[in-house]
Amino acid sequence: MRKRYDTIVIGGGIIGTSIAYHLAKAGKKTAVFESGEVGKKATSAAAGMLGAHAECDKPGTFFEFARASQKAYQRLTGELKDISGIDIRKHDGGILKLAFSESDREHLMQMAALDSVEWLEAAEVYELEPHAGKGILGANFIRDDIHVEPAAVCRAFARGARILGADVFEFTPVLSIESEAGAVRVTAASCTAEAEHVVIASGVWSGAFFKQIGIDKSFYPVKGECLSVWNDGIPLTRTLYHDHCYIVPRHSGKLVVGATMKPGDWNEQPELGGIEELIRKAKSMLPDIESMKIDQCWAGLRPETGDGNPYIGRHPENDRILFAAGHFRNGILLAPATGEMIADMILGNPVKTEWAEAFKAERKEAVHR
Amino acid sequence: MRKRYDTIVIGGGIIGTSIAYHLAKAGKKTAVFESGEVGKKATSAAAGMLGAHAECDKPGTFFEFARASQKAYQRLTGELKDISGIDIRKHDGGILKLAFSESDREHLMQMAALDSVEWLEAAEVYELEPHAGKGILGANFIRDDIHVEPAAVCRAFARGARILGADVFEFTPVLSIESEAGAVRVTAASCTAEAEHVVIASGVWSGAFFKQIGIDKSFYPVKGECLSVWNDGIPLTRTLYHDHCYIVPRHSGKLVVGATMKPGDWNEQPELGGIEELIRKAKSMLPDIESMKIDQCWAGLRPETGDGNPYIGRHPENDRILFAAGHFRNGILLAPATGEMIADMILGNPVKTEWAEAFKAERKEAVHR
Amino acid sequence: MRKRYDTIVIGGGIIGTSIAYHLAKAGKKTAVFESGEVGKKATSAAAGMLGAHAECDKPGTFFEFARASQKAYQRLTGELKDISGIDIRKHDGGILKLAFSESDREHLMQMAALDSVEWLEAAEVYELEPHAGKGILGANFIRDDIHVEPAAVCRAFARGARILGADVFEFTPVLSIESEAGAVRVTAASCTAEAEHVVIASGVWSGAFFKQIGIDKSFYPVKGECLSVWNDGIPLTRTLYHDHCYIVPRHSGKLVVGATMKPGDWNEQPELGGIEELIRKAKSMLPDIESMKIDQCWAGLRPETGDGNPYIGRHPENDRILFAAGHFRNGILLAPATGEMIADMILGNPVKTEWAEAFKAERKEAVHR
Amino acid sequence: MRKRYDTIVIGGGIIGTSIAYHLAKAGKKTAVFESGEVGKKATSAAAGMLGAHAECDKPGTFFEFARASQKAYQRLTGELKDISGIDIRKHDGGILKLAFSESDREHLMQMAALDSVEWLEAAEVYELEPHAGKGILGANFIRDDIHVEPAAVCRAFARGARILGADVFEFTPVLSIESEAGAVRVTAASCTAEAEHVVIASGVWSGAFFKQIGIDKSFYPVKGECLSVWNDGIPLTRTLYHDHCYIVPRHSGKLVVGATMKPGDWNEQPELGGIEELIRKAKSMLPDIESMKIDQCWAGLRPETGDGNPYIGRHPENDRILFAAGHFRNGILLAPATGEMIADMILGNPVKTEWAEAFKAERKEAVHR
Repeated sequence: MRKRYDTIVIGGGIIGTSIAYHLAKAGKKTAVFESGEVGKKATSAAAGMLGAHAECDKPGTFFEFARASQKAYQRLTGELKDISGIDIRKHDGGILKLAFSESDREHLMQMAALDSVEWLEAAEVYELEPHAGKGILGANFIRDDIHVEPAAVCRAFARGARILGADVFEFTPVLSIESEAGAVRVTAASCTAEAEHVVIASGVWSGAFFKQIGIDKSFYPVKGECLSVWNDGIPLTRTLYHDHCYIVPRHSGKLVVGATMKPGDWNEQPELGGIEELIRKAKSMLPDIESMKIDQCWAGLRPETGDGNPYIGRHPENDRILFAAGHFRNGILLAPATGEMIADMILGNPVKTEWAEAFKAERKEAVHR
Repeated sequence: MRKRYDTIVIGGGIIGTSIAYHLAKAGKKTAVFESGEVGKKATSAAAGMLGAHAECDKPGTFFEFARASQKAYQRLTGELKDISGIDIRKHDGGILKLAFSESDREHLMQMAALDSVEWLEAAEVYELEPHAGKGILGANFIRDDIHVEPAAVCRAFARGARILGADVFEFTPVLSIESEAGAVRVTAASCTAEAEHVVIASGVWSGAFFKQIGIDKSFYPVKGECLSVWNDGIPLTRTLYHDHCYIVPRHSGKLVVGATMKPGDWNEQPELGGIEELIRKAKSMLPDIESMKIDQCWAGLRPETGDGNPYIGRHPENDRILFAAGHFRNGILLAPATGEMIADMILGNPVKTEWAEAFKAERKEAVHR
Repeated sequence: MRKRYDTIVIGGGIIGTSIAYHLAKAGKKTAVFESGEVGKKATSAAAGMLGAHAECDKPGTFFEFARASQKAYQRLTGELKDISGIDIRKHDGGILKLAFSESDREHLMQMAALDSVEWLEAAEVYELEPHAGKGILGANFIRDDIHVEPAAVCRAFARGARILGADVFEFTPVLSIESEAGAVRVTAASCTAEAEHVVIASGVWSGAFFKQIGIDKSFYPVKGECLSVWNDGIPLTRTLYHDHCYIVPRHSGKLVVGATMKPGDWNEQPELGGIEELIRKAKSMLPDIESMKIDQCWAGLRPETGDGNPYIGRHPENDRILFAAGHFRNGILLAPATGEMIADMILGNPVKTEWAEAFKAERKEAVHR
Repeated sequence: MRKRYDTIVIGGGIIGTSIAYHLAKAGKKTAVFESGEVGKKATSAAAGMLGAHAECDKPGTFFEFARASQKAYQRLTGELKDISGIDIRKHDGGILKLAFSESDREHLMQMAALDSVEWLEAAEVYELEPHAGKGILGANFIRDDIHVEPAAVCRAFARGARILGADVFEFTPVLSIESEAGAVRVTAASCTAEAEHVVIASGVWSGAFFKQIGIDKSFYPVKGECLSVWNDGIPLTRTLYHDHCYIVPRHSGKLVVGATMKPGDWNEQPELGGIEELIRKAKSMLPDIESMKIDQCWAGLRPETGDGNPYIGRHPENDRILFAAGHFRNGILLAPATGEMIADMILGNPVKTEWAEAFKAERKEAVHR
């Protein structure tokens, strides 16, 4: 007998498991089909900065969506702990976007107009973080741009979903999605199942499913390499950020350094050249890092779309098929709001019109960038 | 511009890379499309016993094919070292199939009729391997059932193929195989390519492609869990084998213990219960193992077919599509002969009729079991 | 020029770093000499249960000391986060000491007389932890016997001490301690230093230093092996405990299973036989663990003394030399109170007489066991 | 009862285990006391180049000793395989010492006068290794400077010694060596033993024992950091060497890149700054390395002496005490000859006078550098 679900989510990264969690919490019979292990690809490669500001250059719909998702983490931290037993390790230090040049400074000053952003002069920066590198002209301090541990969030969503009744199938690559009368059929190597609704949440690998369902949108990877070191001796409580490189202080005492940007590279492994670039950049922000012990190196594929915005919505001609993919650098940040939005669509709850319009597949232009 | 190859092999395990190596050596423009990393799934989970005898209960076509492949390793060891620079770590100790009961003994005595098998009485066994467990009634000693390191063989095939001109694309999951006029088109997440010939060599994940090309054969996994320990103190030069459990002495000083049999389990991770079973069985064959230090635990999926024989051959209606999958416990052993056989079919060289008949998709019955 | 400190602590495990942290907080110039890496031996091998009750059979001085230390963790959790930036991952689920037999039940009922212990009937146990194994007759529930992550605590002590001005020298094995006029000289492979006070806090390796300073007390190891698994699917919020085996649910989603008891074994590596024993015991408490994925195996040496109590105090004839070693199964639990007690002795603060008497080297009998 | 041996060797690195192996082979009752695990410190950090030429600038006693040891590996490879079952993975590619500048070229040309060294012009270098970096002016090719896997050699010595009857005690740090009537007493944390002869072979940690036995010689560390990458695609069969940096092609397909030089650093961990330096240097010799996947980073402490030569010999006033330490960059190369020389001294066999004079503690000047 074939399995039947209310909703099957294809992809067990942070987007897919957030959707499954929110649906399971609403009482829906939900399944996740994950080709490998939950949260092991782009999700666990991410540093986990909830950078609503760090990633946006100007206010607007994207920024509002990001802020809403950022706020949802406040609620989720306790909720996920209660339901799943897993602590997502929220770290409240905030972020310092550093200016090392006049053009950096001008660029940052524009964003400093926002209430949530505070411009600090150089002396203030060094007072907060005395170990920061020389030559800093000032910084935007964004208290709300905190960070979490992405793998822990994803594991909490997945385990929470399971405890609430969902099935999470790992090692279950999906091969095809086909519409049938009254259902969608999902075929994997190990089984076939059908569902009222199917959600495509496969990150950069979503393109094949978009093609199967007749939506002409593509995804491409922007590979990012990272490394971590053990900080045994100096205080650092805020994330340092400059020129797309960041140093994130973890609760464990590790520092996470990321990330390179390699568009079009599908290989998920860290290369020597990328590691060299990270070390060079990290040293300019935090010279003491030179003598810290290397812990790990890794890489992941950010899923990028044609216009830089994710696709979150419904098939224009088939109500049963939804999608949530292409979150680029913002998957961890946007996972809660994305999960809620897709769950609301499936549950028939109202969804903010601006958001639905901004992220639907057939939009005219991006609301971001 | 779309890439074009003579042959595209789908799957970068030991079967797929052996095929690519043999084709590249014959001057064919070849590509391998591997969904993850070369040799990281069933291949690297295998212990690498070239058990032509250990796995066969009686002579016949399957046994002949296995013996031919076993012999090919003698040639390949040096050849792969020269071309790829990689040493496949052939270990010549042979195997002792132990009898702990009268029914074991009777069963083993039947095979001892073969020239390549030597029956040893208990005293002889203990003389060869004084640390073997108590209660042994005798053993079949099979000098030719040596072992290699599967990951090294696969890496050598892949690197050899590359050095001979092939492309090996990792992190490139294939989604579809479609026949076109004069070519076969292969679509992956990251690219599309076409080829004169396509070979399906995706282990237990081959079923989906068989379905796409219209061959109604299925594959199912028989998961096997393994572990390794460091043997720092006792001599052990032969593989010990009993009741589907083996202890393989590596050149590195490690012992590899395997493997459980869990049909239908697609999860590729070692579970606590499986590890307990392995330890219990290993202790009966080699009591000293109890105090050895655990090194690693892992698991892999043996690809099993309906009748227990692999499918190695050509699509009955489409000469451009070939397949080599379903080798069950014998993928390492059969990789050389399988690679040669598929290469010969593509190159138009003669192939032994018994073998072609035995392993074709539309066969009537298995030649083995 | 030779380095000079107020206090040199020999040993960078949780006891030594706690002492250094408390001294540095009081403004003392402190150094830790650690032969390898901070917190990498017995400390990180421990499960981190603050089992004031789990480890004691009856009230008394030892129990009071343990309870005081347990309470200190409430304060330290926030304090260490603020000073060091490291979260020690306190987990508040409490412990269930399970009865599987009438004799278990009788034994546990005795302790249930304490206010902090609550006897639960079988039905109550299964209501709290529905996945617990069959055959449970009841349990002592001890809400205060929570757990922390020992490596994180030790790292927090060490990093906190450094930030407060201490030196923590890793890879610095100490060879000799010698009294000089007005100081104690400590000689390591890499340097020589002198101090007003020296504290021996080297766990089971403290015996050699005791001998050097003329105290005739010995230490012996009781090796414990552990393993961890990933619990992806079932709720478990309390530590399960029976027959010296425990299953500890971590905030990360892992379960830690420990620990074997191997007196006299100095080898710090997990052996196959120990792992088998752990799996067998864990299955009786939590059958679902059988299908969980194995994560890691490890071992550590509990430092045991002749009478089972630690030595915490001062050299009877030389005020400059102190010691804190031999905490057996209770190093994590007792680290805060031990650190405070030694710091108080060095600072000249009052120390509770019962504690000083109970743990001094020249005591008559143990207050525990 | 106290254990008694013919010889106790203090230190289970490649020097100590070589000595133990040679003594055990001669029928002597031998023990190794190793503070941690066999071969886990400087030994396994080494790349394993048998660089008799790479490390020497001119012929002489040191060079002869080195060449004798290099030749001993030819014999040992098979012998260790037979006795221990372990393959030391000898790799016969030789080394290319590259000239990138005129001063490099002049320096190398001097050594090219030796029969065992062959000067190659740039075109010849690129013919042998077409992937070598641009700007090479020529190279010394030294066919005999092959490499082995140091951890495998050490494990083979240790396991061989055990199989031949020796005891190898891991996790057994020695605290003191004391002469008694008719014996030497060795005290470790876990036991006390006595022996006819004791050999100090503790690498950079030997200084403390030298002090105990009254020889006024010191040792200091020169830390070296290394990394390895997976070479999946290009042929490289010879070690590349320039400016104290080398790229060593392993049989496994890995490339080992080493090593930094950090005198006085006792910390055994790889730091970010060292890794950056290695990557920069490696790229100049082999540009393709930039896109290879990083495998591991590590570090080790080379034991350096005052004059750059090792101490190999006998206590000037106590025949029972011997030493073999301070091999700097040459421990792997010199292990066989050192092991034989110490064994010969203990067995009363003749030892080459030049060697005994060159390496004794009370020598006047170094024969090397």
